[in-house]
Amino acid sequence: MLVAAQRSRSLLCVGLDPDPAQMALPDVAEFNRAIIEATSDLVCAYKPNLAFYEALGVPGLLALEKTLQHIPSHIVTIGDAKRGDVQPSSRFYARAMFDRWGFDAVTVIPYLGSDSLEPFLERPEKGVFVLCRTSNPGAREFQDLELTGLEWERRPLFEFVALRAAAWDTHGNVGLVVGATYPEEIKHLRELCPDMPLLIPGVGAQGGALETAVRYGVDRNGRRAIINASRSVLYASRDRASFAEAARREALRVRDLINETLQREGKPWPR
Amino acid sequence: MLVAAQRSRSLLCVGLDPDPAQMALPDVAEFNRAIIEATSDLVCAYKPNLAFYEALGVPGLLALEKTLQHIPSHIVTIGDAKRGDVQPSSRFYARAMFDRWGFDAVTVIPYLGSDSLEPFLERPEKGVFVLCRTSNPGAREFQDLELTGLEWERRPLFEFVALRAAAWDTHGNVGLVVGATYPEEIKHLRELCPDMPLLIPGVGAQGGALETAVRYGVDRNGRRAIINASRSVLYASRDRASFAEAARREALRVRDLINETLQREGKPWPR
Repeated sequence: MLVAAQRSRSLLCVGLDPDPAQMALPDVAEFNRAIIEATSDLVCAYKPNLAFYEALGVPGLLALEKTLQHIPSHIVTIGDAKRGDVQPSSRFYARAMFDRWGFDAVTVIPYLGSDSLEPFLERPEKGVFVLCRTSNPGAREFQDLELTGLEWERRPLFEFVALRAAAWDTHGNVGLVVGATYPEEIKHLRELCPDMPLLIPGVGAQGGALETAVRYGVDRNGRRAIINASRSVLYASRDRASFAEAARREALRVRDLINETLQREGKPWPR
Repeated sequence: MLVAAQRSRSLLCVGLDPDPAQMALPDVAEFNRAIIEATSDLVCAYKPNLAFYEALGVPGLLALEKTLQHIPSHIVTIGDAKRGDVQPSSRFYARAMFDRWGFDAVTVIPYLGSDSLEPFLERPEKGVFVLCRTSNPGAREFQDLELTGLEWERRPLFEFVALRAAAWDTHGNVGLVVGATYPEEIKHLRELCPDMPLLIPGVGAQGGALETAVRYGVDRNGRRAIINASRSVLYASRDRASFAEAARREALRVRDLINETLQREGKPWPR
């Protein structure tokens, strides 16, 4: 992750979530290819959300395959699949995500417990982002439930998830997903887990404040936060002739805003 | 669901989880077809777990497509995908599961909250099984966490999930997933939600006790429990010539054991 971030001087991740109703080109693989070519020097990672490909059936998954081939090898690919299942099923999901699709990292849902995530966690060369505090309005419904019990008196579930995820992290390959729409929670989780990578979706179309997400999300060195924008980049323009250029402009704007924030925090990229 | 159950006089669901290391035939679609032909008069539902198909990549998903075509239309198909994502992603997952694959029902993970499940719940003609208490050893890690707060003092998370799921059930299309490996929890959830369908995996290879699962899981009329067996049926034999017959024998044995339990409970199928 760090290599790609250093090289692009960027904490930006672009979510490749092709929605046929919004794409400037009808072909998913072609659309993604244009987006990748226009933005690959500005990002540290790409994050295809599998829902968008599965909704198109087998042709969608063939387009995902092609898309992954277009991503330069030094850039991290995050398979945003939010998987979670009992073993042996989760072992097959890990095989699908890491070996079949070849993602460098994946997102998972912790509800089933650590044994359900073991097939992901046990791959030291792969990243595992555990959903902790999601970006949606309904995130509070379960994630904020207050727990009881000796050390947990009145602390929310998502905090417990974060500390469990930190405990699972024996290979240094575990991160957390925290929505940009909840800045206080980002701040709190960064304090709890000072060294863990945070994947932060929800800026742009979902309305999360970029600057706060960066300020609260980065570690003490101004790294280990991945700021994801999807729709605001992909659909910056719906014009066939200029959508890629518009996507680049938006990605550049977000990357630069992130870097200005790092600068102001006294944590710029090395020259 | 009821139609298929009545017609087969069966609460048995067979999980179609093709594992190349265990299948008697190398071809997934052929293997599944043989299993379906050998067991379709003995089941109320089939439940393909998507992990096993995704692990094979695009050819696996083509095999899933063929498999679904082989299932007689009166039998319920449950897409065991354990999906859960923020909108609009979950809207695309619902499209994938219900419209693209054509499943009658799906399993979902509640961690992200009700808005994340809305695209599934809002389809009155489709079933939504919410993961509540899963069958794996690690289920306790989060699902048993005790909550605090006025009405919730010291009650576990999975109970709260069950009651939330019941509250979401405005179309009568919501059920719960409860592992057969936790009989006391099945009993408790059946008391809490007397009318909800329970999908109960974990008998057979996972070691959950069948009889208890049936006794505790069914509603007051001896219905609305779906007992799933996967590996014990699919891999009853690895012999090419006789695996389908062996699968039938095992499915028949489980179905009959379920029905004997219903009989003993005074809730037999109508003659």
